[in-house]
Amino acid sequence: MIQLDATHDPARRSWVGSANDPATDFPIQNLPYCMFSSGAEPARAGVAIGDGILDLEGALEAGLLAPSYASAIAGCRGTGLNALARLDRGALRALRLRLSELLRVEDDATGPHRDRLIVSARQAVLQLPMKIGGFTDFFASLHHTERGGRRTRPDNPVPANYRYVPIAYNSRASSVRVSGAAIRRPNGQWRRATGDVHFGPTEALDFELELGAFVGHSSVLGDPVPIDRAPDHIFGYCLLNDWSARDIQRWESVPLGPFLAKTLSTTVSPFVVTADALAPYRIAAAARPAGDPAPLPYLHAEADQRDGGLDLLLKASIQTEAMRTAGAPPHCVTTTNFKHMYWTVAQMIAHHTSNGCNIETGDLIGSGTTSGPTDESRACLAEITDGERPIALPNGESRTWLVDGDSVLFTGRAERPGFVPIGFGRCEGRILPAHA
Amino acid sequence: MIQLDATHDPARRSWVGSANDPATDFPIQNLPYCMFSSGAEPARAGVAIGDGILDLEGALEAGLLAPSYASAIAGCRGTGLNALARLDRGALRALRLRLSELLRVEDDATGPHRDRLIVSARQAVLQLPMKIGGFTDFFASLHHTERGGRRTRPDNPVPANYRYVPIAYNSRASSVRVSGAAIRRPNGQWRRATGDVHFGPTEALDFELELGAFVGHSSVLGDPVPIDRAPDHIFGYCLLNDWSARDIQRWESVPLGPFLAKTLSTTVSPFVVTADALAPYRIAAAARPAGDPAPLPYLHAEADQRDGGLDLLLKASIQTEAMRTAGAPPHCVTTTNFKHMYWTVAQMIAHHTSNGCNIETGDLIGSGTTSGPTDESRACLAEITDGERPIALPNGESRTWLVDGDSVLFTGRAERPGFVPIGFGRCEGRILPAHA
Repeated sequence: MIQLDATHDPARRSWVGSANDPATDFPIQNLPYCMFSSGAEPARAGVAIGDGILDLEGALEAGLLAPSYASAIAGCRGTGLNALARLDRGALRALRLRLSELLRVEDDATGPHRDRLIVSARQAVLQLPMKIGGFTDFFASLHHTERGGRRTRPDNPVPANYRYVPIAYNSRASSVRVSGAAIRRPNGQWRRATGDVHFGPTEALDFELELGAFVGHSSVLGDPVPIDRAPDHIFGYCLLNDWSARDIQRWESVPLGPFLAKTLSTTVSPFVVTADALAPYRIAAAARPAGDPAPLPYLHAEADQRDGGLDLLLKASIQTEAMRTAGAPPHCVTTTNFKHMYWTVAQMIAHHTSNGCNIETGDLIGSGTTSGPTDESRACLAEITDGERPIALPNGESRTWLVDGDSVLFTGRAERPGFVPIGFGRCEGRILPAHA
Repeated sequence: MIQLDATHDPARRSWVGSANDPATDFPIQNLPYCMFSSGAEPARAGVAIGDGILDLEGALEAGLLAPSYASAIAGCRGTGLNALARLDRGALRALRLRLSELLRVEDDATGPHRDRLIVSARQAVLQLPMKIGGFTDFFASLHHTERGGRRTRPDNPVPANYRYVPIAYNSRASSVRVSGAAIRRPNGQWRRATGDVHFGPTEALDFELELGAFVGHSSVLGDPVPIDRAPDHIFGYCLLNDWSARDIQRWESVPLGPFLAKTLSTTVSPFVVTADALAPYRIAAAARPAGDPAPLPYLHAEADQRDGGLDLLLKASIQTEAMRTAGAPPHCVTTTNFKHMYWTVAQMIAHHTSNGCNIETGDLIGSGTTSGPTDESRACLAEITDGERPIALPNGESRTWLVDGDSVLFTGRAERPGFVPIGFGRCEGRILPAHA
């Protein structure tokens, strides 16, 4: 499964100078895809490199990419990366190799074209990277489940099914937006402590720090995807903020699960970090706590147990309106790692399709809140504050839940000795006041 | 809201003879849209009339429809009725008037074209009528909720939120199929009475008799649709079978609601009966039981209370393999009426968007199981048999849950004295054995 090649070589450097900055998320070893537009024209497919974006249409026109990629690249125009994501893994790996060759210092094919090929990311508008059909959100952190359950089900915080079922619910695709889009505080109803049922702006707006996976190859209705084939269906990964209104959620979720508490909007980062780029950061699936049952056979594959995990550092920060005005940077409130997940992404795909349900190119699979075992790795406010113990911010402000004007920023980074670190870019949204 | 016009005139008859048969679902007063193909070419938009389908592209080419409809009709080709559904209500009403004029006995414009205009429904392949973005399933029958709750929550069968919240969950759009598509029995996991967790073919496969509504006009993210504008967003209605695996459902649904129990597949009828066609059958919203709270203000509009209900007779029938072999007709197991719903479709739309979540053209809104107060109106097997009291079929067979080879047929009919009855066509699916 894990295939390292010249694209992961830490010695490789790019003629795009900013890509060689150790702090960049987008060195030549990353090469994530995105959809961008630099004016009024429809968005087109690009590849992030340092502070720039390589224009794939431009590279094709300059004769730098094989004509066999032409229809996939053209097919992205004005929609999303879906046409690229449909390419088979071999073609995608070959494209990555070619892009890495074109962008490395030693390249001499791009010479006369370099100015036209690279668009400054600052001048580009980044769009939703994929046209999303279905959005499924999992619940893959046992730590998140346990902390949430301690309040609502103190005697039995982890549901009996949790260690057998990679629990998920269908979420809402229409309201997924790319990083930077504002989040309108939702109105909704809930029962107050006084007993009356109230409708108004949520008083418990939260973030959930998640990893998102985009489906590349579709599957066929009626035919489950076996777990050892599941990785073939993943195009790549993004950061995902599953904004949640806790008061609405508590009231509406019996018996069919969360609905309006989650559908208000969901934010994703604009870059799809490919499965190939993440190959060096694959690790063993997290060890299950002693006494837990082994995964059922349809959720178990040796290769997945061996390298189905991902070592990804994930952070969430808050910047209030006052902090922004004062020029204070976002304050980090969560540092966690995707390696703590109870279920791997392959297990999620195998479970999702185990009943024959088909997945489609562009589907978004959320991991659920990526909380780890330590206090600093609690990946939503519900876990951090429990609605009662506010976070103290450096400027003297405090937060139990999000306040209008707050922005929440997620970042993600993959690091491993002997490799150049790669990142996910920014996943950010600012809260607007509710409609009256 | 309710606007009756010449298209509803019971005296109107069609030159398509089969449309004048009192038993047809598709008299000239109905004119539902569909997507059909009559060969290898992509599906195109049509209108059901008796045993035929009026080819909208053909009518346009023959100069029988205004050129202003050309792009909407062409836009449906190979996809779904979405481009037609995006037309504003005035344009749709004018199109309906024109189609009714063209198809009535007195018409003389169609004369030379009639043979080419009408395709025999028997020779056409009907497709999924809309390209579906989101599929949301409500839970709008208090009777269904109460009967289900009696088993799982005997002390408190109706959740505390039910009379305030039009409860819904996001369901799965990718696996929605048109009537006639086979249903593969899903595999899944659940905990047996013995305590062990089992993975295998569901042993409790059920149907749910629902009404589906297709969204016409999209709304904007962040902006709720007020209840008095909600009807403007409904293009039309279909029948919907929300196939459900009860064993999987019971095990997986805590705490995030049903997932694989519902995503195996969903069947819809191929015809979209428009809101205009159903105008004569609008009635007052169902009276709430004494003591129930009034709908919260965002769920209350006088017009909706006055005529937001729909008087639609809905039936579910089962035909086993043995019945089919013997030439026995499907056996009716449910007769219910949409007028029993606790929540109106406008209330569903207002609630769905109350947090700012946007709805989009082609979204499918399911009503939830349409059970009524009487035993004969229990609209799924879970209610009828409770998993324990099998239904006796006329040939001596019995059913607690569905068996491989069974087919389930839904029909729907709107009747009112002084009007010609209209129907929904067939919504049917047959169960295939599970994959080993």
